[in-house]
Amino acid sequence: MSSPSRSLIQYGYASPSDMTWSRSEKAIARQAFDAALKRELHELMQEAKEIAGQIKQPSDLCDLQEYLTQRRKEIDHKYNYRYSHLTQVFGRLLCETRVSEEELRGFSEDKLKTIRSFAKFLAEDVA
Amino acid sequence: MSSPSRSLIQYGYASPSDMTWSRSEKAIARQAFDAALKRELHELMQEAKEIAGQIKQPSDLCDLQEYLTQRRKEIDHKYNYRYSHLTQVFGRLLCETRVSEEELRGFSEDKLKTIRSFAKFLAEDVA
Repeated sequence: MSSPSRSLIQYGYASPSDMTWSRSEKAIARQAFDAALKRELHELMQEAKEIAGQIKQPSDLCDLQEYLTQRRKEIDHKYNYRYSHLTQVFGRLLCETRVSEEELRGFSEDKLKTIRSFAKFLAEDVA
Repeated sequence: MSSPSRSLIQYGYASPSDMTWSRSEKAIARQAFDAALKRELHELMQEAKEIAGQIKQPSDLCDLQEYLTQRRKEIDHKYNYRYSHLTQVFGRLLCETRVSEEELRGFSEDKLKTIRSFAKFLAEDVA
């Protein structure tokens, strides 16, 4: 996979690190970010309970341990609340339908454009 | 903690690596080893189910992941089926009451003596 931010800049969008965040945008971002993280962690809690409930043999234990370790790394990596990374973070969350456009309402149009473009870029990259 | 094998050798016991294992001793060792490992893994399976069942918040997920990772490392380290290590392995399992003297019946007296001494050594080291 090529560097997403570089490719997006080539398409004419602002670099995430060039963006400034207004006070109201920061409040919206914090709320949307925390809500998505909370939902993903609750989803993982349910998954862990289900997987653990189905453990029948020792190899299932290893599977659970490896799954939790991998998911923890993914979540730690994904939820990076630095303003210089936030458009990419929300782009990914939008791509994964973990945040809705509704939750991002109030962001400037250039931010939304970058977020949508990054989401589209990721969706095409996965396809 | 000082090196257990070195301390035991100082007490006049044979070095585990000096011991040879007869065919019947190998069969007894394999059976006792596998049975202890199976019991410990089943114990961990039950623990994992119980801990997962009690998950109420995201930090509980981290606790479960860290607990499983740590226990897996411990078990991988503890159950080392090399003949040069087996008296120490059984000494530890005896100390933890994960094998019984009954399961080791058939081992030569020098092996049993080394195993018991190592178990005693570990018990005193923990106390």
